Amino acid sequence: MTALGKVYLIGAGPGAVDLITMRGARLLGEAEVVLYDALVTPEMLALCAQATLISVGKRSGQRSTAQTVINQQLVECARRYQRVVRLKGGDPMLFGRADEELRALEAEGIEVEVVPGVTTALAAAAATKQPLTRRGIARSVAFFTSSTAPGEPDHPALPATDTLVQYMGGREAAATAARLLAEGRRPDLPVVVVENCSRADQRIVRLTLTGLANGLDDAQGPVLVMIGEALQQRPQQAS
Amino acid sequence: MTALGKVYLIGAGPGAVDLITMRGARLLGEAEVVLYDALVTPEMLALCAQATLISVGKRSGQRSTAQTVINQQLVECARRYQRVVRLKGGDPMLFGRADEELRALEAEGIEVEVVPGVTTALAAAAATKQPLTRRGIARSVAFFTSSTAPGEPDHPALPATDTLVQYMGGREAAATAARLLAEGRRPDLPVVVVENCSRADQRIVRLTLTGLANGLDDAQGPVLVMIGEALQQRPQQAS
Repeated sequence: MTALGKVYLIGAGPGAVDLITMRGARLLGEAEVVLYDALVTPEMLALCAQATLISVGKRSGQRSTAQTVINQQLVECARRYQRVVRLKGGDPMLFGRADEELRALEAEGIEVEVVPGVTTALAAAAATKQPLTRRGIARSVAFFTSSTAPGEPDHPALPATDTLVQYMGGREAAATAARLLAEGRRPDLPVVVVENCSRADQRIVRLTLTGLANGLDDAQGPVLVMIGEALQQRPQQAS
Repeated sequence: MTALGKVYLIGAGPGAVDLITMRGARLLGEAEVVLYDALVTPEMLALCAQATLISVGKRSGQRSTAQTVINQQLVECARRYQRVVRLKGGDPMLFGRADEELRALEAEGIEVEVVPGVTTALAAAAATKQPLTRRGIARSVAFFTSSTAPGEPDHPALPATDTLVQYMGGREAAATAARLLAEGRRPDLPVVVVENCSRADQRIVRLTLTGLANGLDDAQGPVLVMIGEALQQRPQQAS
């Protein structure tokens, strides 16, 4: 019986192929098999053209592989291959279901290494040139999602940070804005929405909290919503 | 008169040279001049050996270049060079004083591009294999710092998120823990402290909220403090 392989949980970053880390790119090039999410692009998969590719795409509103099935696939790959990569959009440790995959692998005694990635919020801040913190104005940032798990309340309290970033915020963002208005945040608080962050079809929309409460146009791709005084456009900022 | 150069604000990531993005590494290799922080390592500066290197190191407790001086240096570099890189530890848009640099450059009509980086919190989550979110347990994360700016209150409210991450948390973390206990968080809430994240001398300490309130040993390097139920070590987790 051969030794169990090692599994690398790697953050692909926000989408653009060159926003993966050098370490992530090197390990992709050495992988025997790569299990990848729906949001990973063909350009990025070209970095691991030598590997067997397995799509385990999860994307809201579309059929996807159940998490328990993904966990089992990872275990089976580690039995068959020495170098297994699980490639996740953004960073694996933030809204990535990594806890479940780590537990499944650890239960079988399989070695795991985690390689961090650029999380979409920071790529969106870069793309819009809007720092999420600002001296004297914004010194705390919260990342959250409204996706619910079984047994969780639908609407836990919103974080009371200076800057708020809602991941997977397309449909839920209007409700977030309405709740922030009800909590007393000011109606003209700046909001920046980024769709398909860092990709060729990236779209940036600037509005206010009131505008966000009125709802977003239907987005086709993943949407990130940034809210707070730090998102105020600067006087001489280009676009 | 020659045209003004372009300035790239680039996130170096947490420290390890191969945790910079491929885009960041490429732009470093093309730079004529690089202005870098104290936390950027010599190994990373080897990626821009062709460039003029200017240290503008800022590190708490040590003498450093004032922000207004850095702003002025950036403007002067963009007048003399076509490709200027401002290399910052972690990600430039999170606790990076980017707002001030962007304003100074925009006021002179200088073009700026921002390249995101792996922020230290996510590298610490990877190094400790502790996801910051966990289905059903932790769905919001706050990043904050206690560093104060002139005119700010010393102790704004702590974010009421499931997971809290305090940057530059060495001296301030005990006070944070005491305040969280006073707010009713449970005494045995898991805490993970990471010093010199991703570097050869990385140090990981696991404790509880009560333990953190009792104070940390003196750290030599930058310290990141992660607090919350998501930081609970898994039964079969190695180290």
